[in-house]
Amino acid sequence: MLKVSVIGATGYAGEELLKILIRHPQAEITNLVAKIERSCPINKIFPWMTTLLELECKNKIEVEDIAKTSDLIFLALPHRVSMEIAPTFLNLEKKVIDFSADYRLKDPIEYEKWYEVKHKSKEFLKDSVYGLCELKREEIKKTMLLANPGCYPTGIILPCAPFLKSGLVEPELIVDAKSGTSGAGRTVSINLLFSEVNENFKAYKVGTHQHTPEIVQELEEIYQDKIGLTFVPHLVPMSRGILSTIYLKLKKNISVFEAVDIARKFYPDEPFIRIKEADEFPQIKDVAYSNFCDIGIKVAGKWLVVVSVIDNLVKGAAGQAVQNMNIMCGFKETMALLK
Amino acid sequence: MLKVSVIGATGYAGEELLKILIRHPQAEITNLVAKIERSCPINKIFPWMTTLLELECKNKIEVEDIAKTSDLIFLALPHRVSMEIAPTFLNLEKKVIDFSADYRLKDPIEYEKWYEVKHKSKEFLKDSVYGLCELKREEIKKTMLLANPGCYPTGIILPCAPFLKSGLVEPELIVDAKSGTSGAGRTVSINLLFSEVNENFKAYKVGTHQHTPEIVQELEEIYQDKIGLTFVPHLVPMSRGILSTIYLKLKKNISVFEAVDIARKFYPDEPFIRIKEADEFPQIKDVAYSNFCDIGIKVAGKWLVVVSVIDNLVKGAAGQAVQNMNIMCGFKETMALLK
Amino acid sequence: MLKVSVIGATGYAGEELLKILIRHPQAEITNLVAKIERSCPINKIFPWMTTLLELECKNKIEVEDIAKTSDLIFLALPHRVSMEIAPTFLNLEKKVIDFSADYRLKDPIEYEKWYEVKHKSKEFLKDSVYGLCELKREEIKKTMLLANPGCYPTGIILPCAPFLKSGLVEPELIVDAKSGTSGAGRTVSINLLFSEVNENFKAYKVGTHQHTPEIVQELEEIYQDKIGLTFVPHLVPMSRGILSTIYLKLKKNISVFEAVDIARKFYPDEPFIRIKEADEFPQIKDVAYSNFCDIGIKVAGKWLVVVSVIDNLVKGAAGQAVQNMNIMCGFKETMALLK
Amino acid sequence: MLKVSVIGATGYAGEELLKILIRHPQAEITNLVAKIERSCPINKIFPWMTTLLELECKNKIEVEDIAKTSDLIFLALPHRVSMEIAPTFLNLEKKVIDFSADYRLKDPIEYEKWYEVKHKSKEFLKDSVYGLCELKREEIKKTMLLANPGCYPTGIILPCAPFLKSGLVEPELIVDAKSGTSGAGRTVSINLLFSEVNENFKAYKVGTHQHTPEIVQELEEIYQDKIGLTFVPHLVPMSRGILSTIYLKLKKNISVFEAVDIARKFYPDEPFIRIKEADEFPQIKDVAYSNFCDIGIKVAGKWLVVVSVIDNLVKGAAGQAVQNMNIMCGFKETMALLK
Repeated sequence: MLKVSVIGATGYAGEELLKILIRHPQAEITNLVAKIERSCPINKIFPWMTTLLELECKNKIEVEDIAKTSDLIFLALPHRVSMEIAPTFLNLEKKVIDFSADYRLKDPIEYEKWYEVKHKSKEFLKDSVYGLCELKREEIKKTMLLANPGCYPTGIILPCAPFLKSGLVEPELIVDAKSGTSGAGRTVSINLLFSEVNENFKAYKVGTHQHTPEIVQELEEIYQDKIGLTFVPHLVPMSRGILSTIYLKLKKNISVFEAVDIARKFYPDEPFIRIKEADEFPQIKDVAYSNFCDIGIKVAGKWLVVVSVIDNLVKGAAGQAVQNMNIMCGFKETMALLK
Repeated sequence: MLKVSVIGATGYAGEELLKILIRHPQAEITNLVAKIERSCPINKIFPWMTTLLELECKNKIEVEDIAKTSDLIFLALPHRVSMEIAPTFLNLEKKVIDFSADYRLKDPIEYEKWYEVKHKSKEFLKDSVYGLCELKREEIKKTMLLANPGCYPTGIILPCAPFLKSGLVEPELIVDAKSGTSGAGRTVSINLLFSEVNENFKAYKVGTHQHTPEIVQELEEIYQDKIGLTFVPHLVPMSRGILSTIYLKLKKNISVFEAVDIARKFYPDEPFIRIKEADEFPQIKDVAYSNFCDIGIKVAGKWLVVVSVIDNLVKGAAGQAVQNMNIMCGFKETMALLK
Repeated sequence: MLKVSVIGATGYAGEELLKILIRHPQAEITNLVAKIERSCPINKIFPWMTTLLELECKNKIEVEDIAKTSDLIFLALPHRVSMEIAPTFLNLEKKVIDFSADYRLKDPIEYEKWYEVKHKSKEFLKDSVYGLCELKREEIKKTMLLANPGCYPTGIILPCAPFLKSGLVEPELIVDAKSGTSGAGRTVSINLLFSEVNENFKAYKVGTHQHTPEIVQELEEIYQDKIGLTFVPHLVPMSRGILSTIYLKLKKNISVFEAVDIARKFYPDEPFIRIKEADEFPQIKDVAYSNFCDIGIKVAGKWLVVVSVIDNLVKGAAGQAVQNMNIMCGFKETMALLK
Repeated sequence: MLKVSVIGATGYAGEELLKILIRHPQAEITNLVAKIERSCPINKIFPWMTTLLELECKNKIEVEDIAKTSDLIFLALPHRVSMEIAPTFLNLEKKVIDFSADYRLKDPIEYEKWYEVKHKSKEFLKDSVYGLCELKREEIKKTMLLANPGCYPTGIILPCAPFLKSGLVEPELIVDAKSGTSGAGRTVSINLLFSEVNENFKAYKVGTHQHTPEIVQELEEIYQDKIGLTFVPHLVPMSRGILSTIYLKLKKNISVFEAVDIARKFYPDEPFIRIKEADEFPQIKDVAYSNFCDIGIKVAGKWLVVVSVIDNLVKGAAGQAVQNMNIMCGFKETMALLK
């Protein structure tokens, strides 16, 4: 049994991670930590866990103690905090899967520009792997430090990769993305109150969302050249899920069948990627509570319209993290994730 | 034109009050105050008011200044704060309509028990009128200090009054009430986040809700004796509305037609109370965004089941406040409230 | 492997059943039938099943063919239809788990009164077992015909049983229940449109809901005498879950701790029943997507207030059906249901 | 008083229209007709109208009778039905405001292509005016037959017009629109059930929505040349509102302030159009239940991102219809629409 600890257990991603780990046949949860007033049983915070997980959630991170009883540590912490804690675990030769952005951007200058803080862990940043499983499987197998991708980037990079790789589309993307509210985290804010979100819909951080450089970095690696990205996220009155509508300009005419074929050949045997038939589109409920990314494709004149859906807390966070754990630890990649 | 000021303009009740006052032909809004970081135009806070209300919202209560340009002041403030501010306005002979509980409970001991603070304005408490318009119209006409009823009490006292008065039911009520989330106010709390409320439903403050003594006080006045109340409020994943399901034990058998008749005779010409046909029940959407209280009645063996619905922000707060203003100031009672 | 077939696979209960059966290690789904225009792969109807279940859903019930490749048949059919189909399977010595009300009411006169149709399968009705697992485990083990309980009855009988059995409460219950919309099934009706249900809340079938006789039948069996029930169901703008607020009049004063103790001793080792601490209450999200029934208890003067929550599609339908299957077939009772 | 009749009174647009007409000081509702089983008082269908509108809703269209007691007839009917009824009213010299698409497309060939039926009223089609008030005010004043614009077109043409007119953007638009569910009408369909729409989000009719030719027709009239449009509508789990995110490619660099200035100069004194400050964006709640169209603008490199919001039932249907009525009949344009 792999001993795993979760630091940041009481956010939405942390909660979802526990849900998956509870049913994982090869993982044993050994430590829980969260920013709470006082330590208490985790099921006082999440009553649904009663009888399923009987474990104390601590309110302080005792790194040495945790390391002693852990093979792998999940950090579900805010940006800026992870890079202060991850190095100690890494120095003790423990595997780390980090949910924050701290180890995602390879260029610390970019990090500092978007997150407005100095990067404090540049030596480990070099060794970190951006954990988009379908694109980085071989590197993931070998890494000790896994930067788990952001939710929007997961839902956007996966469907764009085949087409940028194919050379058939202009390197200038318009991405109109729509997310449920759990993506904003379990933090208090007037803007996230039920009475504010319900019966409402809005664009936010238009052209300025911090996931932008992460998407660009990965897509440029695939395209092997500069790309342009206009990224407009929106907030949907639902709890979970991200749907991204992506507009790619075709360099030449292709049929929708060719387009579907390109995507299917790019992902020939992926257990969590499902390409729909031509002109069919996925919806959030097709992937809710699952680790799938479903993709629909249409050719509309000069434009390729690609729609992807993921559950932001599963494939966009905790599910992908466990998928990464499975790869890093030599388990079957789909373990605890398919059913 | 009546000059009115609103203190506490940025809560949900304050916002709804402005919506009604904007369309009131006899009222002119002269001052707005709210607990905000810095003074700013009200439509920076509520963009929907742009072009409809161009007024600065101050972040400090300058009582003297406000009094000079006001005939009537609405206090949409938290409990405990109102009783510190109302006396000054009253001493300057301004009319006050208070949304808080501070002047609702006639017995300061009860107030101190339920709100856990000493009552600081007992002299004015004696003169305040509990503003349930349909039951206190004559007193409302004459008062300078109006205690606007709570949302649950409005939806519960109105449908119970005819039956307690009739003497046909036992003085022991079971009230199972369900409220939308705006009733909890525009305050930050993890429990009120969209992701917590959505796809959820719960009972809360079972048997301990602070509206209990207010309901009991008014119903005992009607019944002219002690009554028992088991009151269980619930939170519904919707923004607005309260539906109360009330179980009253019949002392003797009556038909549903007799029961409907009792209610209709009790409220013969009320513009905002609508008693449904026997065995028909109202739903929230029948009264949403209106000042109506709709009531449905059924006899189920020994029990009388009464269902009432109101919009918690209108009849349960701002609408009733304006109805009270209309009565206090000699306007047509339905002004700005019917259409 | 147990070969199971699902007739009525495309309703909400049928869909949920497939979700559980897909992950059941001892069950193999062999036939799917539904009322659809033409036979098609099940994942054309439910795209989320793509790659998880590749099976044709037929639009006709070929009883003989199905029987040949089935050990157990789930009937997720409307009332009145089940009793026409179940007998053939039973005559072929196949186990049947029926989701409808057809085999729940032991008295066919009651059935005819509430469902307004003659009972056509009285011989099998005698042998059917009402499958409330926690109360009928021994009978369930031996039956070939399992009447899976209704969603409301499950959420109401389970929390009431300990107290009626104890003799401490009057045999006169007030049950104020609130259900999500999936309880109404996947059938077209103006009343179930999103725009009608959203931002709305209502009582319906007040005192006339067809689940009433089923609740009374089971509670009278426990109480061993007549009981009275006032049952008012409500529709909540959420997809899943039932919360029931139950008011029981105490015959004598007891403390809440005694009350909690009664419930816990009644259900000493039940894997799916969780009694909360005194004065703590469960909410829908504690049991959503799970087979748990969580129960909270409070003493309010002369009244015992009991709140229960279940997921109407899991413990209230498909989960309980699989729990029954596990019992009937000698599997571990929690198989496929706990994680 | 203007005598108005509403045919198709029980759909969502019809209901909203009655809500506005009830408060209109110059209109008197004289006839109601709807596709219902039998004639009944309108408040049997919409209980919220009780005491506000006491009128019989007929289930047959008696054209002659209606014409006798009407100055203006609103047709809130499905496409294809309007063109069979409108001519009779027009021949009797009654004004007609049609909510359907039947008189919107000037080219009957286009109509037949998108609506798959022959146009049966070509002579009147020539005289009809496309009633986008802000762009066609002078023609509206004079017409007897007003084609009320579709909801999506209203929210898209208004924000695009200034920029296409300016010549600063390429004539190739990407429009990613998101609508609440009332836009789909009050018709039964599995896809519109609460349990299907709630916690879901999807794109639909990608590139094939029937509002496409209407948007193109009006924008080409403004641009005075061919334009390209990629239009992808989405369904949001909310009842009301449309938010359109529009991507326009700039022919040359301009600042966001110049862009805002262009829009404001294009709409100098419009009572229902509000252009936000540079880089500020509107949300649905800013315009819910109002006749406003709010517009936000940002320059993102080579792209102009424009976000518009409307209430689909008000500015996108009934509100705009009354605005058109006001113009056609010489009333103040904002009558019954501002407060």
